[in-house]
Amino acid sequence: MIVQKFGGTSVGDVDRIKAVADHVARTVRTGNQVVVVVSAMGKTTDDLIRLSKEVSETRPGRELDMLLTSGERISMALLCMALADLGVSALSFTGSQAGIITDTDHTKAKIVEMRPNRLLETLAEGKVPVVAGFQGVSLEKDVTTLGRGGSDTTAVALASALGADYCEIYTDVSGVFTADPRVVPNAHKILKISFEEMLELAASGGRVLALRSVEFARNFHVPVHVRSSFTWEPGTWVQEEDETMEQAVVSAISHDTGEVKVTITGVPDRPGVAARVFREVANRGINVDMIVQNTSTDGLTDISFTVPNYEMKVALEVMQSVAPEVGARDSYADSGIGRVSLIGAGMKSHPGVTATMFETLAKEGINIEMISTSAIRISCVVRQEDVEKAVKALHEAFEL
Amino acid sequence: MIVQKFGGTSVGDVDRIKAVADHVARTVRTGNQVVVVVSAMGKTTDDLIRLSKEVSETRPGRELDMLLTSGERISMALLCMALADLGVSALSFTGSQAGIITDTDHTKAKIVEMRPNRLLETLAEGKVPVVAGFQGVSLEKDVTTLGRGGSDTTAVALASALGADYCEIYTDVSGVFTADPRVVPNAHKILKISFEEMLELAASGGRVLALRSVEFARNFHVPVHVRSSFTWEPGTWVQEEDETMEQAVVSAISHDTGEVKVTITGVPDRPGVAARVFREVANRGINVDMIVQNTSTDGLTDISFTVPNYEMKVALEVMQSVAPEVGARDSYADSGIGRVSLIGAGMKSHPGVTATMFETLAKEGINIEMISTSAIRISCVVRQEDVEKAVKALHEAFEL
Repeated sequence: MIVQKFGGTSVGDVDRIKAVADHVARTVRTGNQVVVVVSAMGKTTDDLIRLSKEVSETRPGRELDMLLTSGERISMALLCMALADLGVSALSFTGSQAGIITDTDHTKAKIVEMRPNRLLETLAEGKVPVVAGFQGVSLEKDVTTLGRGGSDTTAVALASALGADYCEIYTDVSGVFTADPRVVPNAHKILKISFEEMLELAASGGRVLALRSVEFARNFHVPVHVRSSFTWEPGTWVQEEDETMEQAVVSAISHDTGEVKVTITGVPDRPGVAARVFREVANRGINVDMIVQNTSTDGLTDISFTVPNYEMKVALEVMQSVAPEVGARDSYADSGIGRVSLIGAGMKSHPGVTATMFETLAKEGINIEMISTSAIRISCVVRQEDVEKAVKALHEAFEL
Repeated sequence: MIVQKFGGTSVGDVDRIKAVADHVARTVRTGNQVVVVVSAMGKTTDDLIRLSKEVSETRPGRELDMLLTSGERISMALLCMALADLGVSALSFTGSQAGIITDTDHTKAKIVEMRPNRLLETLAEGKVPVVAGFQGVSLEKDVTTLGRGGSDTTAVALASALGADYCEIYTDVSGVFTADPRVVPNAHKILKISFEEMLELAASGGRVLALRSVEFARNFHVPVHVRSSFTWEPGTWVQEEDETMEQAVVSAISHDTGEVKVTITGVPDRPGVAARVFREVANRGINVDMIVQNTSTDGLTDISFTVPNYEMKVALEVMQSVAPEVGARDSYADSGIGRVSLIGAGMKSHPGVTATMFETLAKEGINIEMISTSAIRISCVVRQEDVEKAVKALHEAFEL
């Protein structure tokens, strides 16, 4: 059994939908059980969000979810019709009908339970279930959405719940690359990558898979095959680390220019101050990424952290309200930054990687503003205009 | 308690949606409980149908329903958002969530049960339920649609199930007129009309209310107020016949140029032949309107009937297959016809109406091809190019 997920560009127009139907039909005819997950067509979701902004300033989350879930209805119904033309009996299911039960946190709900009974019945009848990605139904029977990249999460969660052999994520790129091919022309496709590396990649700017879907895949041991719905060539397998996997010191280089650095200065260097600051940030639902606290001089310190661009306004509001409370001097945001990260499972046992990274950046005259590391990742915040130069130099230095 | 239904043009764009929200908010603030029913925005449904035709030839009904029901999700979510901006707490509900249970006859399902528990809870909380028109959920838990004019049916069925005082149908005309104002410039708005007259009007080309919604309103005694969402002026009340209602001999003149006449010639004049013909027609789900059978000459007769334009192809297929069986000579369709009807509850007790109608048409040199009558309606089929002339002459002859 295979779960095949098709993103927005993969079902972007009539011809793409017919091409997807053709591929699903061929997968079925070669003897596989197939469950399909689809996103909304092309820019449908963006169009609906724009429309809602024209109509309303308040935009309650429950109604935003009701609005946005219309997108997948269209793509999945059309795909089922295209499959019918090819003689493949397919039935579309909303998130609710597919038994994707979530909490009540509208616009970014979390899956709490999977009850895919109707999908199992449909498979048992020899038919193909086509499921709306990105959506679920809350315990209070309201329609919910899973937030950014939610369709990937739907696909992986279904693969796990149904016991599928693996999950195929079809997209507009042919897999995961050693670096963004638009920046590094000789970047190459990675054939296999571990869940852990993929997690770090997704968290540090790799846009191929949504972070939550990788977490899901890792937790429930679902192998994921990321591949192109335009060339249909084999892509990248995301799976448990195994012996056949080349233990590259560095597997990939990612970059992210979609963050801002928020700094609060002149903070008294006392226990509990940082906690107070980041509790406020968390209360507003902001995901903080990197955090750096300077060494204290005269009992005062600066704290910097990065957040996604679209959270900047709220983050600054929080800083302005919390600064007087903790006795800080000032707070500001810097949107001129970018992040460059090295990812590699082999890094754990190669202590020289960090040094090589810093040397490479220094040789290019690139200043490092923040540093953060994990066992298999090193990230540096640099000036945004230096990001491409850094990625190219690192790709060469580590001989990817 | 009032059920307010807004059609596609009434929620056709951002400004219209805000205007509707404003009107609903004012109705709520004057102390009414309000339940809102909305259609899809403007031409959304037509656009989706066109898209489906580009993707597929087979277009299974279940998937067509899934596709089309996305339209009302968009309009109702946007309306709830606009209401939130005005400080009115509103919750949108799909047909399924609103408890509109139907049979499984996709694309033209019939309501079998109403379970509006969630709407009642929402009203009890002082909130406004906004319900998707046109849609329901089948006993097999699949999404269904109620067919043409389905949103009117949703509104009237909800008014009945919730025990609302009346149902307001907002549209782009200001009520029911004595004739189509585009044909007869001095046609005037009817203030009150009986259910029976409205039924005949709806069945004979009046496009203001869908036939099924009028049947529903009549059967469940729901007064309906048809009015404009552009001028907001009082419109036409459709209700039980009462003493205050002016017993006009003729209330209105309707016309319909959306039908074709199908004729099967040289049919043996034997018992059972007509039954055989119309059983076949019924088996294909075609609604026949008028039927005329000529007097027999030499034991042979002709049978003519009218069907909607879009059923012509299927009707002709049926005739071609049934003609040899019943020994008929030939069959053909004539799309150059139109129908003109007089409607009036007072007609029952005024036998001269038919004669006046025929005299008026004769004076204009208009030939009558078919005639059909009920207690409160007379319809004549004439050449399509004579329809407007006939409507004008009759409007004058009956001093409307």
